[in-house]
Amino acid sequence: MENLIERFLQKDRIALSKLITLAEDDSPRLLDIMKAVYPLTGKAYVIGVTGPPGAGKSTLVDKLIRSYRSNGYTVGVICVDPSSIFSGGAFLGDRVRMEWAYRDDGVYLRSLATRGALGGLAPRINEIIKLLDAFGQDVIIIETVGVGQMEADIIRYADTKVVVSVPGLGDQMQALKAGIMEIADVLVVNKADLPGAQDVVNDLQMMLRLRKNSDWIPEIILTEALNNRGVSELYEAAKKHRMYLIQSGVKEQQAVQQRGQLCQNAVQEQMKVYLQKCFAEIKDVKAILKVVQEGSLNPYQGADEIRKLLLK
Amino acid sequence: MENLIERFLQKDRIALSKLITLAEDDSPRLLDIMKAVYPLTGKAYVIGVTGPPGAGKSTLVDKLIRSYRSNGYTVGVICVDPSSIFSGGAFLGDRVRMEWAYRDDGVYLRSLATRGALGGLAPRINEIIKLLDAFGQDVIIIETVGVGQMEADIIRYADTKVVVSVPGLGDQMQALKAGIMEIADVLVVNKADLPGAQDVVNDLQMMLRLRKNSDWIPEIILTEALNNRGVSELYEAAKKHRMYLIQSGVKEQQAVQQRGQLCQNAVQEQMKVYLQKCFAEIKDVKAILKVVQEGSLNPYQGADEIRKLLLK
Repeated sequence: MENLIERFLQKDRIALSKLITLAEDDSPRLLDIMKAVYPLTGKAYVIGVTGPPGAGKSTLVDKLIRSYRSNGYTVGVICVDPSSIFSGGAFLGDRVRMEWAYRDDGVYLRSLATRGALGGLAPRINEIIKLLDAFGQDVIIIETVGVGQMEADIIRYADTKVVVSVPGLGDQMQALKAGIMEIADVLVVNKADLPGAQDVVNDLQMMLRLRKNSDWIPEIILTEALNNRGVSELYEAAKKHRMYLIQSGVKEQQAVQQRGQLCQNAVQEQMKVYLQKCFAEIKDVKAILKVVQEGSLNPYQGADEIRKLLLK
Repeated sequence: MENLIERFLQKDRIALSKLITLAEDDSPRLLDIMKAVYPLTGKAYVIGVTGPPGAGKSTLVDKLIRSYRSNGYTVGVICVDPSSIFSGGAFLGDRVRMEWAYRDDGVYLRSLATRGALGGLAPRINEIIKLLDAFGQDVIIIETVGVGQMEADIIRYADTKVVVSVPGLGDQMQALKAGIMEIADVLVVNKADLPGAQDVVNDLQMMLRLRKNSDWIPEIILTEALNNRGVSELYEAAKKHRMYLIQSGVKEQQAVQQRGQLCQNAVQEQMKVYLQKCFAEIKDVKAILKVVQEGSLNPYQGADEIRKLLLK
């Protein structure tokens, strides 16, 4: 383990991959890892990209990576598809297409399986971001598919949240409005050469007028990622939002909040581990659990008694 | 609150609805509610129904409710759509269609929004089932849309898990195979009048041959829910599975496990509440959190210190 962290600090990509896997697997060693790497974090700029399936996000992300690379930045990319079990296949396709990125030492790509139970992954995303940050990736892109609460949770740790839509979404546009749109910092209309692009722009503009907290007004960027059109505009819009975050003091506010949250989450994590140990090892707790399992004690009453035992 | 439980015990449907809302909202009062109603549970038979969008689950569930009603059983129905934020609309449509059920005192229908964060809902499903059970619903049907891990989590508390497929799913069939199929107790091929129904049956049969733990072999039922064909066969298949669970002792094994799990979850829930209180109220804990937020202490180090304070 120390050896793994040691190798991570020496920029060994295999060590990075292994540490991310430990985070993904929710390893009990994660806290020690984070304690060791945390001091190296705080430099990366994190971009979240989401939108409905078929919006062309992967192509857009591909081009965005190239933009950051050609400006001299190293990039880390995390792909998450929380709602589908097809992701293995889909990301495999991306991988083939993005072979160039795998051959570029300045890019680190990682797909996350959401094999865990509900709720397993989202908190870990933050730890994985921190690992990439500590490893020295200047820009971290989180790509996720969907427009619901889950996707919002996954990209909530991003500094700049990019929501991608396309012409012809129909009803899905309503979902976008109801859901993830509120958190967008930059709006992209991709495949802008398709008919109906201007309708989408109009729709988005109307939405923006209804938006509260209008301290930051998201730009709407038209792109044709496949033809590399609009990508540099997106690059600039993201940069502008980043500057806004820093100059307005919002970034520091968010950092304060996030540090507190990281700490509270870590305490909760440790408590969970502690409780599991109690259930497995403490004789009196095990005795109560047994009576509950046999059906002679109300499980909720049993929980009260166990709590009293543990907290005194 | 006592008044609400009192009214619940007197079969007041509005009180039931309010208690379910408290469960859905993850109210801190939930533990006290469950402690009060738990002794009344243990009689209901729980059926989970899942499958991809468009498989005709709602119609099938509609017919299934009618079957149970005409056999003299009261029914509770919970609809969950974890992956979509369209659910409001979709379930509204169902509601109009199922108006008869809303006028039948023996049926209680409820749609659950998954407005919460990731992982918020799945554990609560069990509490909502218990509420319907304690209220006296003989049969509880949980309907969810999808074939992934999330849907598997949502119907895991069902005694009998029904997975619905339809001809023409194409690639989605692969997903079914990889995902939720393993937990199916009864397999339904709905819209069996469409071409390709026999192919689906063949596919399912092949899958079943690969299945481990073959103590129970799922039946494959062909239905045309819209024409009320095959519904009584599904009714009988579910009944047969229920008898199997009871006679094999599997039901009691599951009950033992579930009672333990309910208790452990409740302890964890109480710990979470306790921790929130500590973060907000205990002076030394707040002091550590403050230093962490200001950035002068590693959040993970801070977590260690807080844990030491709380657990001594």
